[in-house]
Formats: sequence, C-alpha cells, structure tokens
Amino acid sequence: MNAIEKYGLFEQKVTAPKGDCVAGGAVFTSGSLRMEIPLFWDGDGYVARFMPGETGEWRYEIVVDGATAAGAFTCVDNTGNNHGPVVTEGYHFKYADGTRYIPFGTTCYAWIHQPQELQENTLESLKAAPFNKIRMCVFPKSMPYNNDEPEIFPFNKKADGSWDVNNPDERFWRQLDKRIGQLMELQIETDLIIFHPYDKWGFSEFIQEESLIYLNYVIARLAAYRNMWWSLANEYDLVFAKSYEYWDEYGQTIKNKDPYHHLTSIHNCFACYEKKDWMTHLSVQSFDLYRIGIWRQDYELPVVIDECGYEGNIEFNWGNISAFEMVHSFWMSVARGGFCTHGETFYREDEVLWWAKGGTLLGKSAPRIAFLKELLYSLPADMNPVNRVHINPNEQTDDMPPLDGFLTALSRLPEMDRIHRTMQLFPSEITDGNYRLQYFGHQCPAVMDILLPDDGHFRVEIIDVWEMTCTVVLESAQGKTRIGMPGKEGIALLMTRLDGVSLK
Amino acid sequence: MNAIEKYGLFEQKVTAPKGDCVAGGAVFTSGSLRMEIPLFWDGDGYVARFMPGETGEWRYEIVVDGATAAGAFTCVDNTGNNHGPVVTEGYHFKYADGTRYIPFGTTCYAWIHQPQELQENTLESLKAAPFNKIRMCVFPKSMPYNNDEPEIFPFNKKADGSWDVNNPDERFWRQLDKRIGQLMELQIETDLIIFHPYDKWGFSEFIQEESLIYLNYVIARLAAYRNMWWSLANEYDLVFAKSYEYWDEYGQTIKNKDPYHHLTSIHNCFACYEKKDWMTHLSVQSFDLYRIGIWRQDYELPVVIDECGYEGNIEFNWGNISAFEMVHSFWMSVARGGFCTHGETFYREDEVLWWAKGGTLLGKSAPRIAFLKELLYSLPADMNPVNRVHINPNEQTDDMPPLDGFLTALSRLPEMDRIHRTMQLFPSEITDGNYRLQYFGHQCPAVMDILLPDDGHFRVEIIDVWEMTCTVVLESAQGKTRIGMPGKEGIALLMTRLDGVSLK
Repeated sequence: MNAIEKYGLFEQKVTAPKGDCVAGGAVFTSGSLRMEIPLFWDGDGYVARFMPGETGEWRYEIVVDGATAAGAFTCVDNTGNNHGPVVTEGYHFKYADGTRYIPFGTTCYAWIHQPQELQENTLESLKAAPFNKIRMCVFPKSMPYNNDEPEIFPFNKKADGSWDVNNPDERFWRQLDKRIGQLMELQIETDLIIFHPYDKWGFSEFIQEESLIYLNYVIARLAAYRNMWWSLANEYDLVFAKSYEYWDEYGQTIKNKDPYHHLTSIHNCFACYEKKDWMTHLSVQSFDLYRIGIWRQDYELPVVIDECGYEGNIEFNWGNISAFEMVHSFWMSVARGGFCTHGETFYREDEVLWWAKGGTLLGKSAPRIAFLKELLYSLPADMNPVNRVHINPNEQTDDMPPLDGFLTALSRLPEMDRIHRTMQLFPSEITDGNYRLQYFGHQCPAVMDILLPDDGHFRVEIIDVWEMTCTVVLESAQGKTRIGMPGKEGIALLMTRLDGVSLK
Repeated sequence: MNAIEKYGLFEQKVTAPKGDCVAGGAVFTSGSLRMEIPLFWDGDGYVARFMPGETGEWRYEIVVDGATAAGAFTCVDNTGNNHGPVVTEGYHFKYADGTRYIPFGTTCYAWIHQPQELQENTLESLKAAPFNKIRMCVFPKSMPYNNDEPEIFPFNKKADGSWDVNNPDERFWRQLDKRIGQLMELQIETDLIIFHPYDKWGFSEFIQEESLIYLNYVIARLAAYRNMWWSLANEYDLVFAKSYEYWDEYGQTIKNKDPYHHLTSIHNCFACYEKKDWMTHLSVQSFDLYRIGIWRQDYELPVVIDECGYEGNIEFNWGNISAFEMVHSFWMSVARGGFCTHGETFYREDEVLWWAKGGTLLGKSAPRIAFLKELLYSLPADMNPVNRVHINPNEQTDDMPPLDGFLTALSRLPEMDRIHRTMQLFPSEITDGNYRLQYFGHQCPAVMDILLPDDGHFRVEIIDVWEMTCTVVLESAQGKTRIGMPGKEGIALLMTRLDGVSLK
C-alpha cells in the first residue's frame, strides 16, 4: 500500500468502455470523512484522482459502467515544499497548512501550446524567477504574436469537423497534467484560465451545454492538484458569445463540483464581475491601482491585479510599460493592500513573447519583483492599509476640520465624483502594528514627515525599489519625524517597531 | 477727449463721501448700446471702471450720493497684444476678437502678498516663461511654507478687531490693480481665486452677507480688466464654513453682476461642483487625467486640469511630482481634449516656493511646456478627441465583435465599474481633420501601427516631449502603417494631411 502525502495526488485508473468524458464516481473514506468524486476519461479508461486533506488510512471504491475497483492507501504528513492548496484569509492568502503565501504571479497564456523545447525553456526560466503563480489558458490563443497552430487540442473532432467535447484528446490532457505537476514541484500555483476570447477554433463559441461538459471534465481531472486555481476567464466581458449569466453558472458549477474549493476568480477587460459566493478573490485588469482600496471595500476579498500592463515595447497599450512601471505596479498594489502579476511583451521577430509563449525572461522587472517578494516574506505578518487617512469623510475625527454643510454637499455629488474623491483618500501605506511600509511611487519628495507614535521607538529605512537597497536612516525615531529623502521616484519607507509601542 | 482701445480700461473717479464699498452707478452709452455698472470705493472717492466692447463714441453719467459726473470718450480698435477677454467656444477657448487662446497656466497663489522685490522678481520670471494664465488668490495664504504675515490686507478692521468688509484698504486693492494690469501687459490671464481654505485671518469664515459684499466689490473693481477670470475657490470643498449652496450664490452673483461675463469656474479638492449655468469651464484638481473625457462628456465644457500635482520635492503628495510627470500631465491633458496648469514646489530653506510666493522658476518642465505650447499654436485649429475608440459600447459598429448578451451585462455593472470601463476606452488622441496628435505617455512602444485613411497621403512625425524634438519618419504614408518607435516614455506622433483626404 502506497503512502500519499497530505495534499498529494492519489490516482487510480480502471479500464472500462468509453462513455461520457466524466462518468461514474469514486468514494473515498477515512474515519468519519467521506468524499465522493467523479471519474474522468483518459484514453483507455476512467481515472479517479484524489487529494487527501487529512492524514490516516483512506479506503476507496470506484464504480463506473462496466468496471469497479477498490483499495486503500495511507496518507502521511505533508513535507518539504508541500504546504497544500492556497486559501484566502481576509484580504490575504496562505497555504492550507498555515504557511505564508503571497502571490507574485506571471503570465504565459499559451505556453503549453508551444513546441516542447520552448515549454522546457519556460520551466527553466520559471525555476530562476520569483514567480509563484502563473496565469495560463487551457485553450490555445489566437491574436497578434500568436499565429501558430498548436499540434494538439483538448478535444477530438466529430465527423462534421466540430469539436466533440465528450471526446477529449488524452495527449493534450496528459501533457497539461505533466505541466501542472512540474509547476507544483516549483511551488508555482496554476491560475488556470478556463475560457478566453482570443479564439479562432470555436472554443469560445461552445453552446452552454458543451461549455459545462468541458468544465466538469476540467474539474474532475485537475481539481486534485493542490496548486490549482480556477480562473473562469481571461476577459470574460470580451467573450461575446457568452451571456453574463453563463459565468455565474460556471462559478456555481465549480462551487458545487470541486470538492477542494480551490480559489476561483473571473478576470475582466472593462469591469469586474459582480460579487458572487463562488468568488474567492478579485482577478482584476486595470491600469488604475488607486482603485484597490475601493475593490477591497466593495468586495471584501483579496484583490489581485492580474493585468496592469506588461513590461515591454509592442504596439498595444497593454504591452509596453517600462520595467520601472511594472515594478512600480507591484509596489503600488502591495502598498494599497493588493497583489500584482507580471508579464513581458518585448517585440521579437520570432514572436516568442513571454506573456503568451513563455521562453526566456528579457526584462528588468523580475529581479526587482524578487526583491519585493523577499522583503515581504521577511516581515512576519500580512499587512493592511493604515487607517490614518479617512476613506469615508463621514468618519469625522478630531483632527479634521468641522464639516458644517459639507456632508450635505457630498451626498449631492455625482457618483463618479464620489468614487474619485474616495480614491484620492486611500494612502499607499500598510501596517501590521509592528511594521509600516509606505510607498511614494512617482512622487519625488526630498523631505518627508512621518507620524510615529510619541511614546515608542522605531527604526526607519529608506528603500529604493529600483536599486534594490534598504538603508537605515534612523535607528530609533519617535513622534513626528522629518526625514531627508532621495527626491526621486520609486522610494519606500519601512518603519519597524523596536519596543512595546505599536505602529498604527 | 481720450481714446480708449476696445477692451481697454476706462476709469473715472468722483470725489464723494464714503458710504458702502460698492455704491451708486454709472451708465455708459454708445449708439443703441447701454451698460450700467456700479461704482467702488477707492480711499478718496468712488470709481467707475469700464471696458468698452465696441468701438465708437461712448458717453457716461456717474451718480453716487453727493456727487455726479458725466463725459465721453472714443473707443478705437484694439491693437497689438490686446485681443479682449478670453471666452469659451465649445470645449476650447479664444479671445473675444477671435484670436486663438490655448491656456497654459501656472500657479502663484499668494505672490501679491509677498515683499515688493519678490513680486517684481515673479513678473520678470513670468516674462520669460510660457504661461498665459496664473492662478492667484485675493486673500493671503496660511499653510506650510506660507508663514509670513502680509503687510497689507484687503480690508481695514473694525474697532473690535474684526474685518470691516465695507471698508477696503485701498493700498491693497491699488496694488492688486497694478499687478493685474502688469499681467495684462504680459498677456497673462488672471485666474483670480476669490475664496480659499488656507486661512488664519478669518476671511474664509465670513458670514454669507460679508462674503457677498466682498464679492460685489471684487466685481465692481476688477471686472473691467479684460484679463480677468473668476475662480470662486481654490478647493471649495475644504472651505468648511461655507455650505454647498453658498458657492452657487457666488456664481449667480457673478453671472448677474459682471457685465462682461468673464470666465467663471470653481476648483475642487475632492469632487467637481455640479454643473451650473454660471460655470464656463471646469477647473479640476485631480491626478487622474484619464477622466478628462468623462468630464467633457458630463459637463460639456472646456476642462482645465488646474491642479494635478506640482513639479517639486516637498513632503506633500501634491507637491513632489517629477518634471517629466508635470510635462506628461500637460501632454495627457491636451491629448485627451483638456488643458493643464503648472506649479513648482521645490524645497527651499527660505520657503520661497513658486506655487505660493512666485520668485524664480527652478524646474525643468517650463521649457518643455513652452515646446508643447509652440507646437499647438503652430497648428491652425483646435483639436478634439478622435472618435475611433467607442466611448459608449452601445455605439456598435461593424469593426467591433458582436455584443450578444453583453449590453445586458453592462447595464448590471456597478456604477463605479461603468465609469472605469468608460475611462479605459478614451484614447489620448486628438484631431481636427488636418492634423492628428497621439500621445503615448508612460508607454514605451518600439513599434506602432497607425490607422491612416487608405486614399490620402500623410506626413508622420515622432515627437519626443522631453528632448523637444520633432522628427519626420514618413514623408507620405497612407493606410495602416507600422512605425518604428523609440521604445521610451514621453513620445507623441503628429500626423499631417498632405492632400484632399481628411484625417479622422
């Protein structure tokens, strides 16, 4: 009897005649625990894949038309890199075993649709990079710089040339399994994009019944990978063949069918999808990082800026921000209580752009993202935005001037200006009480006044986010303190509590 | 009989006993034209100040308690720098005589409250600078870097120490007259801020009756200067002693009392004031220049970004943007159909910061603003945002994908995301049909595809907004054209029509 680690992958195939791509079921029991999962078709039989979430002996029974199987295995403690799936906690993430997880994502939409050598190259690049999440699509991608026809597709075709969604091509799915497994070894979460609009093969135009068959197959096959995140879409609002409600049906399907409740999000082009109970976090496309505070407030979920432009120089406005701007976006996101995702789009004659095909990282942002990642992981706790600046002017405190007549005025403002006003009031500053991190972004102060508690002692460091330096400027400060600053962009301050008095 | 230029300043004082600060009246007639204006007290009599708007012979009669006067003058054509007051035309400005006027403002809030030598220094600086509008306050300013007590104030005090608004200190107002006249000679519009919150002397806390007496005095005294703009406030929404409605009363007062209908706006901190019939243009404080299109759409007025941060390095987030960011803000504003205003806040031990006190320009943005100004004035017509990207997704056209199910979806989105979506769709590109100017801001494309009409011929120039260079890259292009680009920030493209086919 094999031993399986907690959060590891148990797999058992039974040989049976081909029916639907998802069929039959398996029951896994351990003590009073009981989990039921469907089987998926894999070319020559049905497979039960299971991720045990508790140690101990597990027994299973598999039943599908024409075959049964039963057995047992022992689940032992997780070890090494295995910390289980990522879950949310408030506005943050962590591994299921409680280990810290702070997302530092990158984007290689169609890397699994490239030639094998290029895929291996991508994995090598990822090994040396700071990224612990990757945005990638199940379906291939058709758009500028993405003109190659993949060798294999997720489905076989019917006689009439249309896709047969109940007839998966096991070559495709076995390769996807392999790549997700390799990402797992690299401790990289697979933010798997289930639908997207950049399609010339018809996958985005499935009728809803086909889409749901496909979705159920994805869940049955892939949910047992602990590094799985479900991204319903890249740019749901550009998949014009789908109605708004379809997306909710996908979310509900995942909520009902994924026994592990992996992280689930939906990524926008124009506007975030409304809050739903299947949504675990926001996966946002926006250049406007000032809005992170508003999304936190309105959704009460972690906010991941999965697209704010990619470092590069191509002709599209989403694909030509500078390395500094990419690094700045990470710092802005973090300093406003969110998270950010990287991508690279450097023009190449051979059209191998990281953002779509993977390959080699060419930019200057990745090492600087690594620097930020190292810094954040070195701090012991997750931080949230400071509450010193008042988000809601109704929250009147003593140190604000009297609001005679003002509240009435605000209530009359157009909604767009209410939002605008609110945005301006959010600071780029986070704290956990022991540390405070303030980021100045494009601002270039030569002097700065920081407000520290009057009765404690605090170390103050200046961080240069581009040069990747931390310099202690005050060993022990207290109260309102004026600091000489470099007068350039990309500067942050880190304040550290040295005694019993907490930072606010 | 003196000759007065059209839009010139006619002035006649009558000696009379002191009553209210605004009293009596004068009637000016010329042919069928008849204008009635109030007189203002100036220390030793009442003054009638008048700006003739038509050439010909004008007669006047002045009546105030205890004195009368009558006479005539000839109004001759305006000459030289005198083009009359600035008026609006759609989303743009022009002088009353039809001469082009494109606002390139700067900010010296309290320069008239500084020592005389510094005021003269400011005028010298303005003489060499590109600015043709200045934001400046009637009242002195109290805030960091503004700790000096002015020598003279607009009013004398009552016996109890409170301000006597009906008793203006003529020394103050004569100096203000002089400075406005000097700005007029320099062809600089006076964007005169009537109220503001940075006050330790009590001017912002006048009861409404006092505020209106003061406002009527300002109008009676200053409206005849052709270079006068009325700015009801700097940051109306921080003047907590005033109710929201008070501002409308000021606007209505100006609309009713200013016979020349000078440009009138109100500047915000948090949110724009709602549209009113006295409002001639928007005077916006915002760092978010993507919103210019929305303001244009919602207010149908010219949009002047009067505050988007100042070039400098002080501790406040509004006072430490880089020179590049200041220049970028001008280009962004212009390329989105708006206008921008400059300011400088470089830290100095002596606290003489341009934004408040004037003095000497120290930054690097002013020459680059001059470059943009020269470029825009060299183009023959005002430009407006191109309509190639669809602001409203309901405006479906052939080259967009089908919107099946999408419109319903959009109608369900939260308002904030509707606004966000709309913002993303506005391009940074303007045209008048003969020229098209596209600005890439922080984007760093190495290649760019531009869409020119297939059947005409167009010159294409690359503009480097920081290096201040224009380089012709294509002498005669047509249709969809790929252009090699510098791959750096701060690049614009200027396309020029060479034949009968118009740019869209």
